Amino acid sequence: MAFKTRIAGTVLILLLATGIGMAIGISLAGAQIAEPRVVGWQRDKGWGWIWGDDDEVGALNAMTDASRLAALRLVTDGKTFDLGVTYSRNSYKWPGHSPCEVMTYRSPEGEKRQADNPFIAEESNPAGTGWHSCALFISDNVGTQIDGLAHITVGRDNHWYNGFTEADWGGDFGVRKCDATTIPPIVARGVMLDIAGLKQVEALPSGYAISPADVDRALHAQKIELRPGDVVLLRTGTLRYWGQDGADVEKIREHDSAGISLATARYLVEHFGAMMIGSDTSGLECNPPHEGANSFIPVHSYLLVEQGVHIAEFHYLEDLARERIHEFCYVAATNKIAGTTAGFALRPLALR
Amino acid sequence: MAFKTRIAGTVLILLLATGIGMAIGISLAGAQIAEPRVVGWQRDKGWGWIWGDDDEVGALNAMTDASRLAALRLVTDGKTFDLGVTYSRNSYKWPGHSPCEVMTYRSPEGEKRQADNPFIAEESNPAGTGWHSCALFISDNVGTQIDGLAHITVGRDNHWYNGFTEADWGGDFGVRKCDATTIPPIVARGVMLDIAGLKQVEALPSGYAISPADVDRALHAQKIELRPGDVVLLRTGTLRYWGQDGADVEKIREHDSAGISLATARYLVEHFGAMMIGSDTSGLECNPPHEGANSFIPVHSYLLVEQGVHIAEFHYLEDLARERIHEFCYVAATNKIAGTTAGFALRPLALR
Amino acid sequence: MAFKTRIAGTVLILLLATGIGMAIGISLAGAQIAEPRVVGWQRDKGWGWIWGDDDEVGALNAMTDASRLAALRLVTDGKTFDLGVTYSRNSYKWPGHSPCEVMTYRSPEGEKRQADNPFIAEESNPAGTGWHSCALFISDNVGTQIDGLAHITVGRDNHWYNGFTEADWGGDFGVRKCDATTIPPIVARGVMLDIAGLKQVEALPSGYAISPADVDRALHAQKIELRPGDVVLLRTGTLRYWGQDGADVEKIREHDSAGISLATARYLVEHFGAMMIGSDTSGLECNPPHEGANSFIPVHSYLLVEQGVHIAEFHYLEDLARERIHEFCYVAATNKIAGTTAGFALRPLALR
Amino acid sequence: MAFKTRIAGTVLILLLATGIGMAIGISLAGAQIAEPRVVGWQRDKGWGWIWGDDDEVGALNAMTDASRLAALRLVTDGKTFDLGVTYSRNSYKWPGHSPCEVMTYRSPEGEKRQADNPFIAEESNPAGTGWHSCALFISDNVGTQIDGLAHITVGRDNHWYNGFTEADWGGDFGVRKCDATTIPPIVARGVMLDIAGLKQVEALPSGYAISPADVDRALHAQKIELRPGDVVLLRTGTLRYWGQDGADVEKIREHDSAGISLATARYLVEHFGAMMIGSDTSGLECNPPHEGANSFIPVHSYLLVEQGVHIAEFHYLEDLARERIHEFCYVAATNKIAGTTAGFALRPLALR
Repeated sequence: MAFKTRIAGTVLILLLATGIGMAIGISLAGAQIAEPRVVGWQRDKGWGWIWGDDDEVGALNAMTDASRLAALRLVTDGKTFDLGVTYSRNSYKWPGHSPCEVMTYRSPEGEKRQADNPFIAEESNPAGTGWHSCALFISDNVGTQIDGLAHITVGRDNHWYNGFTEADWGGDFGVRKCDATTIPPIVARGVMLDIAGLKQVEALPSGYAISPADVDRALHAQKIELRPGDVVLLRTGTLRYWGQDGADVEKIREHDSAGISLATARYLVEHFGAMMIGSDTSGLECNPPHEGANSFIPVHSYLLVEQGVHIAEFHYLEDLARERIHEFCYVAATNKIAGTTAGFALRPLALR
Repeated sequence: MAFKTRIAGTVLILLLATGIGMAIGISLAGAQIAEPRVVGWQRDKGWGWIWGDDDEVGALNAMTDASRLAALRLVTDGKTFDLGVTYSRNSYKWPGHSPCEVMTYRSPEGEKRQADNPFIAEESNPAGTGWHSCALFISDNVGTQIDGLAHITVGRDNHWYNGFTEADWGGDFGVRKCDATTIPPIVARGVMLDIAGLKQVEALPSGYAISPADVDRALHAQKIELRPGDVVLLRTGTLRYWGQDGADVEKIREHDSAGISLATARYLVEHFGAMMIGSDTSGLECNPPHEGANSFIPVHSYLLVEQGVHIAEFHYLEDLARERIHEFCYVAATNKIAGTTAGFALRPLALR
Repeated sequence: MAFKTRIAGTVLILLLATGIGMAIGISLAGAQIAEPRVVGWQRDKGWGWIWGDDDEVGALNAMTDASRLAALRLVTDGKTFDLGVTYSRNSYKWPGHSPCEVMTYRSPEGEKRQADNPFIAEESNPAGTGWHSCALFISDNVGTQIDGLAHITVGRDNHWYNGFTEADWGGDFGVRKCDATTIPPIVARGVMLDIAGLKQVEALPSGYAISPADVDRALHAQKIELRPGDVVLLRTGTLRYWGQDGADVEKIREHDSAGISLATARYLVEHFGAMMIGSDTSGLECNPPHEGANSFIPVHSYLLVEQGVHIAEFHYLEDLARERIHEFCYVAATNKIAGTTAGFALRPLALR
Repeated sequence: MAFKTRIAGTVLILLLATGIGMAIGISLAGAQIAEPRVVGWQRDKGWGWIWGDDDEVGALNAMTDASRLAALRLVTDGKTFDLGVTYSRNSYKWPGHSPCEVMTYRSPEGEKRQADNPFIAEESNPAGTGWHSCALFISDNVGTQIDGLAHITVGRDNHWYNGFTEADWGGDFGVRKCDATTIPPIVARGVMLDIAGLKQVEALPSGYAISPADVDRALHAQKIELRPGDVVLLRTGTLRYWGQDGADVEKIREHDSAGISLATARYLVEHFGAMMIGSDTSGLECNPPHEGANSFIPVHSYLLVEQGVHIAEFHYLEDLARERIHEFCYVAATNKIAGTTAGFALRPLALR
């Protein structure tokens, strides 16, 4: 379905209704450094609940045909990097999520033995055709993910982005606002900050908190700058240990708790205008959080609830690091399943 | 993970080992109409089991950095068309597949009531943070799909593409060769043939068999040509009735049986060099098949087993049809779940 | 675990704390017709929330060693009637419940092919041993059932039996009070009232409401009396159409809506002292309910919430009817799965 | 359904066809110790494939109205012991089985929020009725179990009891011969042999092999004798550590490998005529098996495949041990789900 049309409409209304566009226009016009025109974002403030009472899209509303085209223009060689990891019943996941089984549901032998479908019989099927299909029992928060804006709630009213509350929009079959089907296809400039490379380690140690200074140093070392509307991916090195399907649970768990601090999340969003932030861990943020945090996952609450910024998790960055590719066109489209709280077992692409 | 590297290696070996590359080079050199150089394909023969004994990729091996770059160069406006439809517990699916439930697994109220995680307690969580996640029971053959090469088997030995047999490569946890993780990210020229538009109907009637002549007429009407390596999508109009989540099962079923005949599949692959073929129905091919067919799904056997050509299903083509966009950059990446027989509930993109 | 001990303790406390035992003792002592001493029940009132604030068992608390022994003394021949029906993926169920799949999870061929367990190898396993196991996706409200007391809620606070509320005792993993594990093994006098037989029909027509007068007539025709503490099962004849696994969904649905009215439920509990009531339909009560009912399932609310009386559903009564066995020892023990709201796919027994 | 009738028919045919009945009659007539007449069993040979080519029931065919009545006559007090343990998502299970989730599928809040059923609306539902139901993902080999005769296979042809082979009777939806629906309701004399009590330990140590001599000593110490047709349950003490729901996985695993040797299985079946054998562990037999065993589970192959003797697992015997009740009426009826390989999460009863 054409996101172009719908988003354009939304933005048009927003421009008229809230005057944000003009405010940005002015601020950008006055800026000395030419910033790409990005609708919705304000320096030192970020994004937030600015897209209208019904909005379920958040910062990704900032994408336009122009921004997508600019991102696609970064592709010079046609190289495609698959940022997804294979998920299986053996893979590491956060233990609070439901387990995974991929079960052979129909198999050619089973169909022929069971003979529960008349068309399998030899008269109509001399070629002996059969088929395989699987039934899956799986969590919507596993493998390479993009967290939807309903994933995290805060407060006694358990509200999420844009004030949607559990009492109004919860349900038995997943969330009824901001489910993963509302995440538009993402085509944007992607920047990879190689923090493990900066620190010259295989992978950041357990619980390491990536600081704003680390971000500055990585930008300097990589000779790259961030721009409003970017998808920013920070490499901890954890997925170096994923192997075939993430079965080395102990090793992955050890490094998986490294991630950004709340200060860094704020810095990336409010100072640089990151439209989405991600990493190669299951939760992006460092764990445990900083002392005195008001939540066990303050970065999640800040990004998803307050800012409407989606979170990219378990993105495989090892090939990009090896080839020192730090800027690319990021393309991702979540599975489209009603009610789901995240895109899962995805394969985002880095095109270059 | 970098597909570029691996595929390049594979192709290199193939060129040396089988001489196909040279044969193509020669035939192409001698051709009067300049055809894009596409490795592996031979006119009047198609693709087939030519990529080596271990190959699990099939015709998609033909993608190269150059072919991807050429496809991306088709994007002139930054428009993004989401070709995926929303899948839910109510959606139409082939009745032989397992049902779908998306169940709220963890909810903020449930977590606070159940108090089974210490970190949810107010002391460490004054913000009252909670989370949503879902558990899914779902088939790997539903919603917008790309069939993997192990989906269909033939013969008493129940073999699939490249001769992999059930006795050797079947298993309890899905297929062990050619699962969906082996489908590389697809970036290719996409061509949409609007057969329903050609026939001036809302949707093709039940069981309508799209013929080679229909293809020729559509190409002529749309003033477009096919090239080896294309992803060809044929529009029956069926998804016009999908609505929010495909719950009008009767209406969809009525039109879902329209599709290509075996002759058309052959024509697209052997004459035009289609690298992948798809449509806006659940099975691409017309049902029932032509009289005397040796299978209840001869197009599936031909494409998946004989030719190693993946099949694209339930691709939403209505927006493309409305805007008369017939050529685009097709980008798709399946979910990456070990053992699965297809990518499911996908969102392929048409970039233009 | 010894229910004897625990229940005896509960009852002891109750006798002391509430004086019910004495009240019954007195009323029974004064009664002209000798009634079996049944703790807790009061004529014209029934059972209710009398078993203490923490009670999760309801009327089944009335069982004692003496009552069980008396029931077992009804067995004179050693005949065993299986009152359970086979449940499968094809079986009729209320459409609001989740679907069923029984999937071959491990199979001897799969284990040998997959070789994911070292002990399957020929050295340690020259006999070539393998195993079958299934994974099930299934509802806890299907097949032959006994509804737990948390199955139904009423009011804005969504409370169930004994005032347990959703806010306090709901959860993500089923109910946290009155789950099926709290249903004690049931050993009691069972009485089958053959209403279809009385009406001389194969099965009662759709929506037929079994009245108190029907109960009286059946008792008279069958020359049997009800006693406090009985399990009363009413036959509509619906399961005559179950066949192998209830796949004739249309036929079963037609008759499945016959059942008792609210007046009949009251009559059985308050006048006769039924400790559990059941039938051979999926919901016991007639549907739609009587005009002006305050609920779509008034019998469920009355029995489960108000009276603490469990409901027996889809009990197969055809063999009992054929052999005209109307009094027996009823024995049932639900599956013991934490959080479940009913015992499901059960095989209650009628011993005679 | 009346098992009486069917089994009586089967046995009649058997007596005529195979002469077993007469053989038994003779041997019994000649025996000095009066043995109960048990059809089918032969001393020093056991049971075996003697019940006809189509038989799926095995040794349980030996039950008759008379044997059931005799077992029920053991009940003198009306005491009911629940031999089932509560199974939950946290419970110990053999790691090769699929995991468990019991998920709140419908909840009163969810129904009212979601409003996907018209009858929930206030007009037709002023009482505010709602309901709970759960969806389960669960293995058919967990909690308190009775293994069906198709659970274990042997040989290159992967056959199970009575020669049913995978090629003929396997399938995608569980087994097609000897599934759990074929296990008749079991009403029989039960004998508990308290081996942990004999050894004066809380629980037998890891891997302890219960020997024939242990059986003899326990019989002597408990002053009890075994009779053909008994259900024999051996106590290791492992379930002393089950607690609320078997979440102390490490402790349970430690003792769970204690169990009977192959010699003991033979002794119980061939010398004593046990009709079913069980224990309070997940697998009955000691693990690892004796040196030189031809299988990783020789007791399972022997009992299930060769002898047609069902296995009872994870039976809770602690209350029986505490009250020194060694003889009782054992009553068990498995869930009745097509295709399942075992009864699971059961509550067998010991009546006394």
